Amino acid sequence: MGIVIRDALAILPGVQAAEDFQIGKHTIYITDDLIAGIDQKPEGFSEDRVIDGKDRLVIPGLINAHTHSYMSMMRNSADDLSFMDWLFKRVDPIEGRMEPEDAYWASLLSQIEMIRSGTTTFHDMQMHIHQTTKAVSQSGMRAVICRGLVGDSYDREDVRLRQALEEMEAWKDCGRLSFRLGPHAPYTCGPDYLRMVADVAKEKGLGIHIHLSESMTEIENMKKDHGCTPIEYALRAGIFDVPVIAAHCVQLQEGDISILAEHGVNVVTNPASNMKLGNGFAPVPELLAAGVNVCLGTDGAASNNAQNMFREMGHLALIHKGTHRTPQCVGAAQVFEAATAAGARALQLNTGSIETGRKADLAILRLDVASMMPNNNLLAALCYSADGSETDTVIIDGKIVMENRELKTIDEEMVYAKVREMCVRLGL
Amino acid sequence: MGIVIRDALAILPGVQAAEDFQIGKHTIYITDDLIAGIDQKPEGFSEDRVIDGKDRLVIPGLINAHTHSYMSMMRNSADDLSFMDWLFKRVDPIEGRMEPEDAYWASLLSQIEMIRSGTTTFHDMQMHIHQTTKAVSQSGMRAVICRGLVGDSYDREDVRLRQALEEMEAWKDCGRLSFRLGPHAPYTCGPDYLRMVADVAKEKGLGIHIHLSESMTEIENMKKDHGCTPIEYALRAGIFDVPVIAAHCVQLQEGDISILAEHGVNVVTNPASNMKLGNGFAPVPELLAAGVNVCLGTDGAASNNAQNMFREMGHLALIHKGTHRTPQCVGAAQVFEAATAAGARALQLNTGSIETGRKADLAILRLDVASMMPNNNLLAALCYSADGSETDTVIIDGKIVMENRELKTIDEEMVYAKVREMCVRLGL
Repeated sequence: MGIVIRDALAILPGVQAAEDFQIGKHTIYITDDLIAGIDQKPEGFSEDRVIDGKDRLVIPGLINAHTHSYMSMMRNSADDLSFMDWLFKRVDPIEGRMEPEDAYWASLLSQIEMIRSGTTTFHDMQMHIHQTTKAVSQSGMRAVICRGLVGDSYDREDVRLRQALEEMEAWKDCGRLSFRLGPHAPYTCGPDYLRMVADVAKEKGLGIHIHLSESMTEIENMKKDHGCTPIEYALRAGIFDVPVIAAHCVQLQEGDISILAEHGVNVVTNPASNMKLGNGFAPVPELLAAGVNVCLGTDGAASNNAQNMFREMGHLALIHKGTHRTPQCVGAAQVFEAATAAGARALQLNTGSIETGRKADLAILRLDVASMMPNNNLLAALCYSADGSETDTVIIDGKIVMENRELKTIDEEMVYAKVREMCVRLGL
Repeated sequence: MGIVIRDALAILPGVQAAEDFQIGKHTIYITDDLIAGIDQKPEGFSEDRVIDGKDRLVIPGLINAHTHSYMSMMRNSADDLSFMDWLFKRVDPIEGRMEPEDAYWASLLSQIEMIRSGTTTFHDMQMHIHQTTKAVSQSGMRAVICRGLVGDSYDREDVRLRQALEEMEAWKDCGRLSFRLGPHAPYTCGPDYLRMVADVAKEKGLGIHIHLSESMTEIENMKKDHGCTPIEYALRAGIFDVPVIAAHCVQLQEGDISILAEHGVNVVTNPASNMKLGNGFAPVPELLAAGVNVCLGTDGAASNNAQNMFREMGHLALIHKGTHRTPQCVGAAQVFEAATAAGARALQLNTGSIETGRKADLAILRLDVASMMPNNNLLAALCYSADGSETDTVIIDGKIVMENRELKTIDEEMVYAKVREMCVRLGL
């Protein structure tokens, strides 16, 4: 199957440095799941579909590097609570009442919102791993999935770990799905358990996805109970010996940033969630200055409450200018990098930029709409002006999953009906 | 002309306190420019148009209480600059090159974006007042317009003031247009000039719209030159003797909040603009606690860079939770109040809430979209989840200006073509 996007503006990596994005008119050739050529038609290209690029901007599909896609039915039902009350009094009890199949429909609801706002890949942590993989296989999205792990002892027979490994085995042939191990957080994983997860990750060549240093309560408890920061705790447990994606990293203490930088830990910042739960602002400018790979995520809909990466890019581009009192802090290119290529690097995926040989994960946006007008600085437009609804067509793994705002893979009406039923049953 | 919106969810003022919004299913009757009844058909009602309320939410049209609508062609062309460089090195020179008619097309561009995201009223400060009034007369929006005034001496023959007064006279019969006097800021208006503006406002019964305490540079210069804060400077000039809307109020010093509260000054907060220009975060929770009427605005597109009040509601709902490190700070109801009724109070307009006898300024949003699903806490959904594109139909002054996302009053293609031409000419 060959798709050509003809004469569209496109955001390509810079020539000298990838993060100096260059914007120009290009024709993009897609063969099967890959970008097969830019401005040069690949030999033997089969032009099965032509997409007119007039008034369109092609961007690498956005990468939501930290979310919990099953949480969308909790959207707007857990507001204005302290972090620990939010987690243990609101989210946990609802999760306890969920049927496994609920996670399937809720994940599809999140995925509708993500696709409609130009996201092509998400990094998910949840309990009902089998339901989410099933939902991803239907939606056509690219996903890296982690079964949330919690425990105390060095138990390699841990039931959650076994579920995770079984699921990986079952989906090992699906090109759009990959997996990491997901120890939830230092305050829900004892040191021995964490060490066990790190050992399994090393043996199996898996990366790790963990929440670190999200709230001040977490820091205080960790200091009281273990005399160290959550970052030091993770370091001691051997977690940083494997490729790690650490979500949040809001409350970093002296020395933490050096540890993250030294061990090549990837940090996902989740600005809306961190503000909404009263956790504050992650030291993103300082992390970037230390050379840490910073990517961007929405977090789950229970604490955001959207799954729209354009909102998140807007927050990331603005809040640090506010906290640091300078308009020169965290510019549009850095934000776009965080939402695309940095996420791909962290997730070890061959996507996140428009280059020959990369996976064909693309979002095509309308430029003939007020929010994108004038069209003269499109990187800024994406971060400061766009709301996500400019997304017109989305291609993932070389397949068109949305065309002219019509979803091709998900029955939206059915999902909404199921979510409504679920909310009544769960008392939401 | 009678319009009925049948069986839609609607956000009405609370019974005990208006700001405790109540959400329920209602039928809304519109006669001419007014809401003529809620659930009770007015006598002799002429049912000319019926809008089906299934899967729809009716909200009072949003009120953008501070913007510069002619600035939209500068969108994304003045990023990452310090406030004073932004104003004097970038914005001012572009303004100097503008032809008056440019302000007409640029204002229409802003108005397209505003209508499409549910805004029905805006409060504008600009130079080409005649062009903006013309644009508003075409678009069908409600607007309060101020000719930006700058000067040094007590000169009642000031040319800008005369333009402002002439324009008011010319449009005195247009129900959608009203006017205030717009002295730009303490650093562009000398004390005698400000006193003159205050005197004219008193004589003519006009309100005032002014920028106050936006940047630290402004505070420092004011202290150096006049030994007081900008708030004290405005107070001494007699500005607060008339109804005032003060934009920004970011850098408030000790005593400033008491002055604002005592004199009933209305404050417009512009979170995106204040962050983008590195000015920081206005003390909104403290202003609200002091009883100040706080409303919400986007500011001009040169410093936001959007004119979408949903983005702005999202910022307002989140940033203060971040700065104050508590999820209980500035809740969804307070945000929605700031974006609707508080703006109407400040602008002295009979709009901003769904009540019989108010102007029929309404936005009708889709609920059968992912970002609004589930539909169980819609006030939160508006602030934390919606991106504005949920806006389906907009009624202003009893006229349908957008229906099923199709604009009825503005030729979008024409506006975009004119803006493209203008950008080439202005070197944007």
